[in-house]
Amino acid sequence: MLASKLYSPTLREIPADAEIASHQYMLKAGMLRKNGSGLYSFLPLGRRVTLKVEQIVREEMDATGAQEIMMPIMQPAEIWHESGRWSAYGPEMFKLQDRHDNGYCLGPTHEELITTLLRNELRSYKQMPLILWQMQNKYRDEIRPRFGLMRSREFVMKDAYSFDVDEEGLHKTYQIMYDAYDRVFTRCGLNFKPVEADSGQIGGSHTHEFMALAAAGEAEVVSCSKCQYAADIEKAVPNTLDMAAEDAADVELIETPNCSTIEDLANFLQIPVEKTIKAVAFDVDGKTVLCMVRGDHEVNDVAVQNLVGGNTIEPATDEELKAHGLQPGYMSPMGADTPDNESFYVIVDPTAMNVPNGVTGANKHGYHYKNVNPKRDFQNVTVATIRLMTKDDVCPHCGAPIDIVRGIEVGQVFELGTKYSEALNATFLDQNGKAKPYVMGCYGIGVTRTIAAAIEQFHDDKGIMWPVAIAPYEVVVVPVSSKDEEQMKIAEGLYTQLKGMGVDVLFDDRNERAGVKFNDADLIGYPVRITVGKKSAADQTVEIKVRRTGHEEVAAIADSAARVQAILNELRANNM
Amino acid sequence: MLASKLYSPTLREIPADAEIASHQYMLKAGMLRKNGSGLYSFLPLGRRVTLKVEQIVREEMDATGAQEIMMPIMQPAEIWHESGRWSAYGPEMFKLQDRHDNGYCLGPTHEELITTLLRNELRSYKQMPLILWQMQNKYRDEIRPRFGLMRSREFVMKDAYSFDVDEEGLHKTYQIMYDAYDRVFTRCGLNFKPVEADSGQIGGSHTHEFMALAAAGEAEVVSCSKCQYAADIEKAVPNTLDMAAEDAADVELIETPNCSTIEDLANFLQIPVEKTIKAVAFDVDGKTVLCMVRGDHEVNDVAVQNLVGGNTIEPATDEELKAHGLQPGYMSPMGADTPDNESFYVIVDPTAMNVPNGVTGANKHGYHYKNVNPKRDFQNVTVATIRLMTKDDVCPHCGAPIDIVRGIEVGQVFELGTKYSEALNATFLDQNGKAKPYVMGCYGIGVTRTIAAAIEQFHDDKGIMWPVAIAPYEVVVVPVSSKDEEQMKIAEGLYTQLKGMGVDVLFDDRNERAGVKFNDADLIGYPVRITVGKKSAADQTVEIKVRRTGHEEVAAIADSAARVQAILNELRANNM
Repeated sequence: MLASKLYSPTLREIPADAEIASHQYMLKAGMLRKNGSGLYSFLPLGRRVTLKVEQIVREEMDATGAQEIMMPIMQPAEIWHESGRWSAYGPEMFKLQDRHDNGYCLGPTHEELITTLLRNELRSYKQMPLILWQMQNKYRDEIRPRFGLMRSREFVMKDAYSFDVDEEGLHKTYQIMYDAYDRVFTRCGLNFKPVEADSGQIGGSHTHEFMALAAAGEAEVVSCSKCQYAADIEKAVPNTLDMAAEDAADVELIETPNCSTIEDLANFLQIPVEKTIKAVAFDVDGKTVLCMVRGDHEVNDVAVQNLVGGNTIEPATDEELKAHGLQPGYMSPMGADTPDNESFYVIVDPTAMNVPNGVTGANKHGYHYKNVNPKRDFQNVTVATIRLMTKDDVCPHCGAPIDIVRGIEVGQVFELGTKYSEALNATFLDQNGKAKPYVMGCYGIGVTRTIAAAIEQFHDDKGIMWPVAIAPYEVVVVPVSSKDEEQMKIAEGLYTQLKGMGVDVLFDDRNERAGVKFNDADLIGYPVRITVGKKSAADQTVEIKVRRTGHEEVAAIADSAARVQAILNELRANNM
Repeated sequence: MLASKLYSPTLREIPADAEIASHQYMLKAGMLRKNGSGLYSFLPLGRRVTLKVEQIVREEMDATGAQEIMMPIMQPAEIWHESGRWSAYGPEMFKLQDRHDNGYCLGPTHEELITTLLRNELRSYKQMPLILWQMQNKYRDEIRPRFGLMRSREFVMKDAYSFDVDEEGLHKTYQIMYDAYDRVFTRCGLNFKPVEADSGQIGGSHTHEFMALAAAGEAEVVSCSKCQYAADIEKAVPNTLDMAAEDAADVELIETPNCSTIEDLANFLQIPVEKTIKAVAFDVDGKTVLCMVRGDHEVNDVAVQNLVGGNTIEPATDEELKAHGLQPGYMSPMGADTPDNESFYVIVDPTAMNVPNGVTGANKHGYHYKNVNPKRDFQNVTVATIRLMTKDDVCPHCGAPIDIVRGIEVGQVFELGTKYSEALNATFLDQNGKAKPYVMGCYGIGVTRTIAAAIEQFHDDKGIMWPVAIAPYEVVVVPVSSKDEEQMKIAEGLYTQLKGMGVDVLFDDRNERAGVKFNDADLIGYPVRITVGKKSAADQTVEIKVRRTGHEEVAAIADSAARVQAILNELRANNM
């Protein structure tokens, strides 16, 4: 490809609404343009990257024996009503009507569709296990689309669905997909980690997220410094911490003016934060849930929702809190209504239960109780682990220190079990002729998000540093002066030679200053740059530079194509 | 691929709502399933065909220097308001709103999107000509979706858009795309014809449709038996026919009871149909249009609409006809209101003008006029060619006889000119620094419709006969008895050998009767079948059968893979 023909309108300024590197650089390098909130066009360079990621996904899916299909993006409302998810999915689902007023959604996922597609035709255990997959646009009406491809409203996803006769079969299929995902992200050059995850609202039991580790990630990942344990922080269950024993003193009501935070309170009382017990309250599908954790801990709302059950979790309003005898800002179970575990729950984290002579809200404005000993003083509460891990926690498996890092979820594998096959009455006949629901799994890869994740991981202040496998072009040939005929001839010769060798190469034949061409090469992030300059004509050498490592070398023109090939092979072998 | 693993649920019965061969066979062969009105899932075999067609399209687009991009399917309403097409497009466009009540459509086409995408960035004549293309789902809310992939509501389209500095550049680009389309459909094995077409509502001037010739086609194509002339019947302009001269007699009012058709009338009066002048009336955007053609001719409503101008053309209601002095069933300009060419038009085809002493309606129930000589008797009418060609017409270019055949529109190339760039204010700076609107073209290929067209052209009463280039698998190896170990071993050996040679081969290893396997092979339509039977073990031969030609031969096992390769190459060389 000739750069003079390539449509890649680079920008001098980074658009104001682009907050993270992947979004900034894809816009700046002319790979991506915004057409509406969360809606993007991929320009030629961006499209090339997408096609390369898609090809890697396709090869690895095909290698597992999974079969590619293509379901409609527009799905009839009926099947979502049948599964019960039409309303459960909430406002994140795009809905529309046709000219006859029939309802449809733009598929955010395809469990309903594939289950109804197969339910009358996948009839025998002999046809199973079966894995079907597709790659297409998915839709999610995000409240606040942002971060470019990280949280867009239309995005490319690979989704696969598996059908087994029993749980044992599902486990095997799950592992096959897990391994394939491992290969996909390895080949894409990502630095990633499969982590145990919460199965949340999709149903099912066993699930892993594939997390690309990056500071811009919206998720937090706990990983053990010693063993293999790694989990989404929402899934990680911390150990219960003990505290030095004390004799239980009598509860005392104390005035605590101007203590709007736990830190204020601890400072005012001159006690460690660990001696306070803080309250956070939620509304879960209309139920009021008061959560108590130790002052230095945070509540894991996913754990709370799993415990209570429900589709939505939101902060509780002051009105509903007061209706249960709770005083916002000074809440605790003490003096509040007795939890009925129907409309009003109180859940106390076990570490909070262990606080001796602690301080907690008195349900009276400006007052707290001191010398609270929850085991003695909290009545009728539910004790369950509802706190997030902190970096001071240890691995729940082996006790070694843990790390907490940020990650971008690029894939997820999921054991669904019979949730959808039962809801949609999709059965097969087993070896004994007995009808049984399919035992299903589902498996997703965020194709466009994988692109963003790669950039988040591999960039510097000049631009992107693509892994070779997904780079828009592998090599760029840059003549320093486009007016120097000799340089142009050498550059074009190398371009032609590399193309003939099957290298994905761009020739920057533009009539631009050298600085502009070098900056664009760094910005767009071609893995290898060959520079043809004055010396090239003089002593028949060119400069080869590797974007990712910064390695530079001078090679004889005659050897340079072979050297570039060798460098690319080495980068590929290291998934760089 | 092993047939025992392949998910291709064949049907014994053809579903009742499948009316044409492509729809019937894709359902029956387990390639396609319906998920809603005009919404389909492609099962593995169908998906494989789609991928092959897409690959051919991609290769030919890339070969032209056109650059692949991907625009969003969901398009903001604003740009359609800006171009004026939001309402003009009518109920065929799927519209939806997001959670913030912003309006969107599901793109039926992308002129607005690409023009606004480029308008601030494609700024210089130096960047042009530029061709950008994409391949994605398109949406059209058909009143009555039918014929499977021929008229579905969600379908895969390749759409390309070109940007030139002037008309001359556009003509060149148009020809490049025209030639690429020719190669695409040739490689897909279609029997097709590029025909001149009407530019209709998209705007622009010059356009060709690529028509796959097939009886199930919804379009009619006029083609010359001698010269290159070929046109969509709606575009073809027939010559004006003369009639034997007669002395003009005086007009006479005659009673014509029970003559509800032109044929009744001619029979009743014992005159040839050619001596009658028939009336057809339309409502075009609220204007009443009376059209007069000779009794044996039909009105070309596209020609009428182009003449009058307007977005919608529908049959006129009795009420509006009577408001203009017209009597439904007995209409003519005689005795009706004088046309004002604003709210009431009368258009007479020039051949109808030539009818001597003809018969036409008297605008009185049960009465006609005879001895009507339009040139004398029709007052203030517009004379313009508004009839469709018939097989009795001759080529308007060379006068040779013509054929009229049915066709499926699989592609269209279109010179748009500056319609969208002017409406959307999208300009570039020319060599003199002057701002000018892009001179645009657009180019579409119905990818999924191409699949249907191939089946319409190549099938028999047993099933599909795929062209090799787009067959789901090129070869099927069928052991007659799956219980015969020797046969299975030979079959598997051939399968492995062919796979190693890069042949796209399926091994029918299913435990089924030979008849079932043969029927499925014919139904699914693999181009070549290798049968391994009793004799294979005995005398080391297999039978090779070519689905398309019916050719059968016996080959030594040792030679058979090479023979199959040679047969496939020969089929490919002939685009079969």
